[in-house]
Amino acid sequence: MSASTFPGAAIVRESGLRDGLQSIQKILDTERKKEWLRDAHAAGQREFEVGSFVPARLLPQLADTAEVLAYAKTLPGLVATVLVPNLKGAERAIEHGADVMVLPLSASHEHSLANLRKTPDDVVAELAKIRAARDAAGSRCVIEGGVGTAFGCTIQGEVKESEVLRLLKALLDAGADRVGLADTVGYANPAAVSRLFEKAVQIAGDRFSVGHFHDTRGLALANVFAAMQVGVKRFDASLAGIGGCPHAPGASGNASTEDLVFMLESMGVQTGIDIPKLLAVRAKLVGWLDGEATHGTMWRAGLPKNFSRVAA
Amino acid sequence: MSASTFPGAAIVRESGLRDGLQSIQKILDTERKKEWLRDAHAAGQREFEVGSFVPARLLPQLADTAEVLAYAKTLPGLVATVLVPNLKGAERAIEHGADVMVLPLSASHEHSLANLRKTPDDVVAELAKIRAARDAAGSRCVIEGGVGTAFGCTIQGEVKESEVLRLLKALLDAGADRVGLADTVGYANPAAVSRLFEKAVQIAGDRFSVGHFHDTRGLALANVFAAMQVGVKRFDASLAGIGGCPHAPGASGNASTEDLVFMLESMGVQTGIDIPKLLAVRAKLVGWLDGEATHGTMWRAGLPKNFSRVAA
Repeated sequence: MSASTFPGAAIVRESGLRDGLQSIQKILDTERKKEWLRDAHAAGQREFEVGSFVPARLLPQLADTAEVLAYAKTLPGLVATVLVPNLKGAERAIEHGADVMVLPLSASHEHSLANLRKTPDDVVAELAKIRAARDAAGSRCVIEGGVGTAFGCTIQGEVKESEVLRLLKALLDAGADRVGLADTVGYANPAAVSRLFEKAVQIAGDRFSVGHFHDTRGLALANVFAAMQVGVKRFDASLAGIGGCPHAPGASGNASTEDLVFMLESMGVQTGIDIPKLLAVRAKLVGWLDGEATHGTMWRAGLPKNFSRVAA
Repeated sequence: MSASTFPGAAIVRESGLRDGLQSIQKILDTERKKEWLRDAHAAGQREFEVGSFVPARLLPQLADTAEVLAYAKTLPGLVATVLVPNLKGAERAIEHGADVMVLPLSASHEHSLANLRKTPDDVVAELAKIRAARDAAGSRCVIEGGVGTAFGCTIQGEVKESEVLRLLKALLDAGADRVGLADTVGYANPAAVSRLFEKAVQIAGDRFSVGHFHDTRGLALANVFAAMQVGVKRFDASLAGIGGCPHAPGASGNASTEDLVFMLESMGVQTGIDIPKLLAVRAKLVGWLDGEATHGTMWRAGLPKNFSRVAA
C-alpha cells in the first residue's frame, strides 16, 4: 500500500463540542463554544458536530445546542452537524437549519437497549420516519446514520461483523443519505478496521461518510490510517482528545484533532487546517477545561523541522 | 491490505532499559533493572536491549550494562541486545557474550557529526572493523546496523530517502548480519514508513531486522502498522513509553511496549507476551521512576471485553 493510493484531501470533523463535552464533567459556557468554533474556523476547519438535540436534563453540557448551531451558521462555509437521538431531535435539527444530522445506532443489541432503550432495528425504523419528516419539510438537512459499537461493546463484548454490515445497509435502505462506523468504546484495531471498513465501503460506496474512533487504547490514529487505505476520507476527532470513556476514568477520548491533522498533513493529505493556529485553539480549550483530562502528543513537540504544510 | 497478509507472530523488543533509561534523569539501580528483566521475561517477553557499551561518564544511567547483561543471560531463551557506538564497545559486547549488538548510524550527516563525531560513512567503516573483530574472536554475536534519523532530523531537517537506503545497503555490504531503520526523533508518518520500509525490505530481504519508532508526535503505532504491511516483524518499544526527546521536554519516548503488544495481539499477531503480567511490570516501573514522564494509553482502560489473547 503506497501513499499514492491515498486521497489528496480528507476532512477532519470536530466532534469535541458534542462527543467530547458530553463525556466530561465541566460544562463549557456558550460564549467559549462560540470562540472555539470561530477560532477553529479561522484555522481552516470547516466541519463541526456542534451539539445534540437531546433533552437538556439528560445532557446539560449540550443544552445550548440551538444557540451554538445558530452561531455556527454565521461562519462562512461551515458545515454544522448535530446528533439526534430520534424523530423529535431530528425535527429540531430541521427547524434550526442544521446541515447534517447524525442518528446513532448501536450494533450491539444489549448496548442499544441499555443506552437508547430501543433495538437496533427500532432505530432503523426511526430513521425512516426522520427521512419522511425531512422530505415533507422540504429540508436539505443531510441524514447520516452512525453505526456504533461496531467493534464490540462493554456490555455484550463481541458484536458480529455481519450484524454491523446488515444494520449499515438497513440504514441506507431506510433512507439515510450516508452512513458511518464508530468504534464507540475503543475496541478496534487496524486489522479489524481494514476488514470491516472495506466491506462497509463496498456496501455504501460514495455514501460511506465517516470513521469515528476513540483512542481509549491508543490505536485511534493507526485505525484512521487503516480506514484511509480503503478509501475513507472523513474522520471525527476531538481537540485535545477530550471525551474519555465512562467505564475508564481518565482514559482517552476521541482521536485528538491536532494529532490527526498532523498525521494527515505530514502524509500529504490536505485538511485545509493550519496546525499552529489549531494548537492555539487547543491551548485555549485546555485552559477552559482546567482540571479535566486532555490528551494528544504533538502539541508538546511541535512540528518537525522538515514539515511542509501541504494545504494551500 | 487485509489482516491475512500480516505475519502470524512478531517480536516486541524492549528498548526501555537502553533507549528509555538513557534519555531520562533518573538512574534506575541495577537490582531494579534485573527485576524488570525477570518480570518481563516471566510475562513472556524474550528480546531486550539491556544497555549500551559506552563510557560510563557519558551515560551513567547505563554504567552497569555488563552486570545487567550477565543477569539477562541467566534467563532461559532471552535474547540480549546491547548498543555499541564503535569497535571498542563491540569488543566489550563480544567479551561479555551479548547475543546481538546494534551499531547506530545516523543517516543525517549533520546529526552524525554532532552526535557521533563521525560521518555516516565512517560508521560504515567501523562496522567492517567490528565484523572482522567478531569473526576473529569466533563470536556468534549478531551484528545489527541501525540507520537512525531515517525520516529527518532536528538539525538538518530533511534526510533523503536515497541516502538512507544507500547507507542501509552499505552496512550490509560491510558485513552487518542484519539492519533496521529508526525514526530517532519522531518525524515519520505511516505513508512515509510504507514507502521507505518497502524499499528497505527489498534491499535487505530477510536481513531486514527491526523498526524503531518514537511516539513524539503520536504516530508510533500507526507507523508500526504501516511497517508490518511491508513485512517487518520486529519492533522496538519502551515500557510505559519512557524515553522522551531531548528537544521537547515531556514529549513521548519510544512506542509504548504495552500499547504495541495490545495492538499486535488484538490483530491476532502473536507476541508471546501476557498483557496483564506486562501491565504489572509497567506499574512497578512507573513507581520506580516516580516523577519521570510516562506514557501509554491502554493501561488505564484495560483489555476489551471481547479480547481473546491469541498467544499460547
